[in-house]
Amino acid sequence: MVERRPVGFGDPDGTPVPEPATGGMAGGTYALDDEAVARLVPERSKRGHKGSFGKLLVIAGSLDYAGAAFLVCRAAGRAGAGLVTLAVPESLQPLFAAKVIEATTMALPEDDVEEVDPEPALAKILDHDHDALVIGPGLRPSLATADLLRLLLTTSDEPPEGWSDETQTGEGPQPRTADGSPVVLDAEALRTLASADAWWTRVGRRCVLTPHAGEFARLRAGSGHDPADDGDLNADDEARARAAAAAAGEWQQVVVLKGARTVIAAPDGNLAVAPFENPAMASGGTGDVLSGTIGALLAQGLDAFDAACLGVYLHGLAGDAVRERVGDAGLLAGDLPDALPIGRRRLARLAERQRTGRRLGFGASREADRDGDDEGGSDADPAGGAADGDAGGAS
Amino acid sequence: MVERRPVGFGDPDGTPVPEPATGGMAGGTYALDDEAVARLVPERSKRGHKGSFGKLLVIAGSLDYAGAAFLVCRAAGRAGAGLVTLAVPESLQPLFAAKVIEATTMALPEDDVEEVDPEPALAKILDHDHDALVIGPGLRPSLATADLLRLLLTTSDEPPEGWSDETQTGEGPQPRTADGSPVVLDAEALRTLASADAWWTRVGRRCVLTPHAGEFARLRAGSGHDPADDGDLNADDEARARAAAAAAGEWQQVVVLKGARTVIAAPDGNLAVAPFENPAMASGGTGDVLSGTIGALLAQGLDAFDAACLGVYLHGLAGDAVRERVGDAGLLAGDLPDALPIGRRRLARLAERQRTGRRLGFGASREADRDGDDEGGSDADPAGGAADGDAGGAS
Amino acid sequence: MVERRPVGFGDPDGTPVPEPATGGMAGGTYALDDEAVARLVPERSKRGHKGSFGKLLVIAGSLDYAGAAFLVCRAAGRAGAGLVTLAVPESLQPLFAAKVIEATTMALPEDDVEEVDPEPALAKILDHDHDALVIGPGLRPSLATADLLRLLLTTSDEPPEGWSDETQTGEGPQPRTADGSPVVLDAEALRTLASADAWWTRVGRRCVLTPHAGEFARLRAGSGHDPADDGDLNADDEARARAAAAAAGEWQQVVVLKGARTVIAAPDGNLAVAPFENPAMASGGTGDVLSGTIGALLAQGLDAFDAACLGVYLHGLAGDAVRERVGDAGLLAGDLPDALPIGRRRLARLAERQRTGRRLGFGASREADRDGDDEGGSDADPAGGAADGDAGGAS
Amino acid sequence: MVERRPVGFGDPDGTPVPEPATGGMAGGTYALDDEAVARLVPERSKRGHKGSFGKLLVIAGSLDYAGAAFLVCRAAGRAGAGLVTLAVPESLQPLFAAKVIEATTMALPEDDVEEVDPEPALAKILDHDHDALVIGPGLRPSLATADLLRLLLTTSDEPPEGWSDETQTGEGPQPRTADGSPVVLDAEALRTLASADAWWTRVGRRCVLTPHAGEFARLRAGSGHDPADDGDLNADDEARARAAAAAAGEWQQVVVLKGARTVIAAPDGNLAVAPFENPAMASGGTGDVLSGTIGALLAQGLDAFDAACLGVYLHGLAGDAVRERVGDAGLLAGDLPDALPIGRRRLARLAERQRTGRRLGFGASREADRDGDDEGGSDADPAGGAADGDAGGAS
Repeated sequence: MVERRPVGFGDPDGTPVPEPATGGMAGGTYALDDEAVARLVPERSKRGHKGSFGKLLVIAGSLDYAGAAFLVCRAAGRAGAGLVTLAVPESLQPLFAAKVIEATTMALPEDDVEEVDPEPALAKILDHDHDALVIGPGLRPSLATADLLRLLLTTSDEPPEGWSDETQTGEGPQPRTADGSPVVLDAEALRTLASADAWWTRVGRRCVLTPHAGEFARLRAGSGHDPADDGDLNADDEARARAAAAAAGEWQQVVVLKGARTVIAAPDGNLAVAPFENPAMASGGTGDVLSGTIGALLAQGLDAFDAACLGVYLHGLAGDAVRERVGDAGLLAGDLPDALPIGRRRLARLAERQRTGRRLGFGASREADRDGDDEGGSDADPAGGAADGDAGGAS
Repeated sequence: MVERRPVGFGDPDGTPVPEPATGGMAGGTYALDDEAVARLVPERSKRGHKGSFGKLLVIAGSLDYAGAAFLVCRAAGRAGAGLVTLAVPESLQPLFAAKVIEATTMALPEDDVEEVDPEPALAKILDHDHDALVIGPGLRPSLATADLLRLLLTTSDEPPEGWSDETQTGEGPQPRTADGSPVVLDAEALRTLASADAWWTRVGRRCVLTPHAGEFARLRAGSGHDPADDGDLNADDEARARAAAAAAGEWQQVVVLKGARTVIAAPDGNLAVAPFENPAMASGGTGDVLSGTIGALLAQGLDAFDAACLGVYLHGLAGDAVRERVGDAGLLAGDLPDALPIGRRRLARLAERQRTGRRLGFGASREADRDGDDEGGSDADPAGGAADGDAGGAS
Repeated sequence: MVERRPVGFGDPDGTPVPEPATGGMAGGTYALDDEAVARLVPERSKRGHKGSFGKLLVIAGSLDYAGAAFLVCRAAGRAGAGLVTLAVPESLQPLFAAKVIEATTMALPEDDVEEVDPEPALAKILDHDHDALVIGPGLRPSLATADLLRLLLTTSDEPPEGWSDETQTGEGPQPRTADGSPVVLDAEALRTLASADAWWTRVGRRCVLTPHAGEFARLRAGSGHDPADDGDLNADDEARARAAAAAAGEWQQVVVLKGARTVIAAPDGNLAVAPFENPAMASGGTGDVLSGTIGALLAQGLDAFDAACLGVYLHGLAGDAVRERVGDAGLLAGDLPDALPIGRRRLARLAERQRTGRRLGFGASREADRDGDDEGGSDADPAGGAADGDAGGAS
Repeated sequence: MVERRPVGFGDPDGTPVPEPATGGMAGGTYALDDEAVARLVPERSKRGHKGSFGKLLVIAGSLDYAGAAFLVCRAAGRAGAGLVTLAVPESLQPLFAAKVIEATTMALPEDDVEEVDPEPALAKILDHDHDALVIGPGLRPSLATADLLRLLLTTSDEPPEGWSDETQTGEGPQPRTADGSPVVLDAEALRTLASADAWWTRVGRRCVLTPHAGEFARLRAGSGHDPADDGDLNADDEARARAAAAAAGEWQQVVVLKGARTVIAAPDGNLAVAPFENPAMASGGTGDVLSGTIGALLAQGLDAFDAACLGVYLHGLAGDAVRERVGDAGLLAGDLPDALPIGRRRLARLAERQRTGRRLGFGASREADRDGDDEGGSDADPAGGAADGDAGGAS
């Protein structure tokens, strides 16, 4: 869990985070920075095997949006998932098998018109061993996709006719699957939810929803709210925080409202705000990288809010590292995955110093990030982790 | 708009730009250099999203010339477009879906012999949300392509039988589409125009034509001029400028006459000459990179002449950066896109100093390009931007 | 052959290797380090041609696990094989032909349902000129695959009905092929063996088996042992060494038990333990890189135990080099092949110094690794090879 | 033409080149080094366009050997060809269109069993505008391939029944094509010739044959010589030179006998020996890179012997540069093309100094290779070009 720190403290670039409205939020609001986020980086056993670090199943990609699936998978691998599997309609498997290297692919059964056949596809997905799911990036709108999503997310063994079958929801969530693995919902999955009746009353899995402002507005409209009441979700940070918090509370899921200063809201009222404002990131495919990153962290065992916070932060660090190289324009989403591990390594080192510092009685924030021979030493250094420059050295 | 400066002033490599003939030109002739071009770099809002930075639709590529489409799309992304979509005949979509990452693909309907079916293809294109178009690189000659181009460029809702239906042109241009988004015409699109009757009387969109000398000569011949009257369009800079200006005036479109010292001519008589003479750029596919670059700048909101000037200049800087690494021979067009952002970043920094200088009352041209800790400071430095060496540091 | 050195001597990172149980082992147990392994690096004739350095045939990959085949082939090339050929079912050849560059591909005949047809596939494989084989990475489970494996490994010209036809095994191994080239068995090949009756009594080729702990347990169960009796094969180094040694003795093949501190066991009781514990390597596809590396070394003429020891060591050095760049998480298997040659070069230089030192009467372990102008000189240097830092400089 | 210098003078690594037997050779034998080869680098006009620098047509690649075609094309582009087109059987065009970027592809008509149909394929090739050809790398053996090769190389407009129709050869070579563009013959093209009757009496084009020792022996046997009489063509430099010279004289074509210390022999008796002995180059696909390099130089207008000498030398420099990075093992052929331009740039600079030196009256061999600010200056420097280190800086 992100350690509680008041807004405005330790924001890396010195810009104060705006005070969000607190009405309706049970928890606190926190500015993400290196120190807060470092605590979330999962320790990695020296003797772990690929199963130890999480298996992610990705349902993404189509002929129109093939690159999205590639970006999710590559980001997930760079974010530390042990195994990544990409599930695609059977007829597209050769295309995606040619496109990926480390990820494996899985064919979802199709009907006669090369649409996924929801019921057998569900059976195959449930039969697959995985710790987390990413659903949505690069899927094409279709009834079949919507059906498969409904089957995957809803909770009854008897697939209901619609999303809001009151007789069944009255019985409360009944996880359909044994594992009930958590899921990142992005892009087409969000558009599907936006047109489903009261979907949030039926979903039995822990979810992280990652809408940008436009997708968020559609979801809010689908929940019976006038998006105009939420204010300017691109420019007004207070409005963004308030709306994300309200949605997370209503839907009882973690909501990541993407954009400049991305907001992460939890159902319990916790709210985090990322410091990144990077125009180079306003480029097609960067959201796919984010969903893969969060999915990989879910697969590594983080809870939904923590995975979202750490994922957003690593994604932002990667973007800053690439921007350092290319400037404010011309970043391609494919640049980001390879930049992810550097940020994680930096945060992992900071976390190690925090642990060492606590044991020694030093304040963690006073220790240095040293990359040399004396790494791991406990000597204090006035340069805090937030000023550390090595995020720019992406391989 | 490029700021007016007399020819011969500020040419980066010290070679005087030849004085073009001025007969027939209403405007002035300008040598492109860092300072003139920096003013054109669009500012990039820190809070922009991918929609803010332009959506480009690319109609390019075929089985014979598949790489051309890839190069256009990658260049457009590196030149800062927010979203790039590649439209290809339906049967080729799997091939191109496998080839691109960040760009999305769109299938154009085909007839029985796997040629694009012009009318439904047009409908699909017009239904797509985009801010600019690139048409032509890597298309194969075909009647279907020619028909689709005519439909896209002409102005009536009733498709005319030919390009020069006088009864309709008498009514003046009637933009066919609501947006009338601007378009870069290259390669096969230019060859199609060269054999169309008086196409320039029917085109309702703002266009940038990017012919090399051979394509230009065909276009001139198609306009009823004897190319021989234009002089030596490869070697004679005066002839190049004169001919480009005459063509831009007649066609009422921006003309980019490619080659050593590329000329950009506007319908209003404005004329710009780029300083680049780089034999390494005489290599297949470099023109595709240029059309993608200009298209991305159109999508970002620049007007046609400015997009052409800045695009030609960024493309030239990228070429110089690669030449710095590989020498006069052996550049591959695929090297160029990744080198584009570095030049843009340098120009954006210069523009920032120009703005700061104006505010402070210093002459912008006396300020230094400093990449270090003191970046953005207002201290003067005698080394002008044009001597800045970091264009060679392409990632 | 690995030079005999007692456990605990020269372990690069100073951690003592646990004393394995010696019961049942005829030979010694050795900790792999730079000096022990350098002796195994094959000298490379300045005038060798591509045939001199070994031809490797790889039977790997499927639609679900396409990347595995790519990783095996690329690793084999980077490990110095002269020629690498990838054999795949005929219907998948176009996919793999698009994926590889330096490797060639070979189509294995299929039956009506696109399964490999074992008998004609065998004929084609035996007709191919190769010095070693890798079988298994990325194959899908199927009866056809199992049949083909049985045909390739068993020893009679009359293909037996089952793996353990006692009348035939009574006559001892009769190599089925003229070359009897050695083979690396990994992944699906191991799962096939695990369910075959007494396969080890029928196999006529020299094999290197490369199971991880789970695959090893299944193989042991298939040999009539209760895996529980082997102890904790992930965490207990003594148990790992004991079990691998027992298996190698029973099966009369070299066994590589992968994981942290990989164990290599020979049928004659020799046992080696690698020093690497790298959590970044716990990522899908790293095992494919290992099998390709060992296969390439077999093709270069090393015997099975030496190829396994050197392959495990080069693979571990490559992993350490990548970890140096990316940290403990986020390594992708595709990072490893390009890092292989650097480690080999370092070991080859150390071997050269060892040879020079022996001729001059100096102790090899006291000589320096010098990469500069005076490389190859015989001057002594107190910095031993094990402390050499250039493994991190992967291209 | 390579400037004449006696054997043993200026050999970069100080090893004397063996004196070849001179019996049967009309010309001299020369050791290739930087200074001899620099004179061959074609000057590159600052205002050239892509047509100026040569159009190369490549007939290469098959499903089994797909990477060969990629390597030829990429090498040709890096060696400075303006345009590269890859001709492949129609059914394979999608595969290769997905694999290349800057090269364009051309479909050769096929018969019912997906073999190239020789006559219509010939027509399409002759209709294509090109300055040179590469034929052979990665082709599969087939009668259709052999027929197409015969049609392309023979000299009559009436395709003869066989290679050695005496009534026609009595009339002397009658070039079949208007251009008679020169051609590099490699791999399968050489195997085809080896089984054709007296092919050398019928070929009307200037050819460069690039056999390795095994292919050379087959060609010699096909010419009625016992390969055993040629001696050890791998190890005996004198035998290699003698045999290559004899073959070039008999066949009246340039012969490149590949291997350590590659020999280039011309029909007029001229003979050159390259200094490179690089075990890292003994790896699949390096020969494809060589044929593409020589083909690109032919397309740039060099005569056959000069193109072969410069191509072998640039290829060798590229190999040395990669070996500098990876060591003696683990080079992949795909590493080489990107290393080609660096060597060419170095030689072009040396040539420029040679020209300047001659004008100034200084001996060219005493001038330095200076990459810094004072490049192009005429100050003398005792370090000759052959000792120049920047070949290792491949991009």
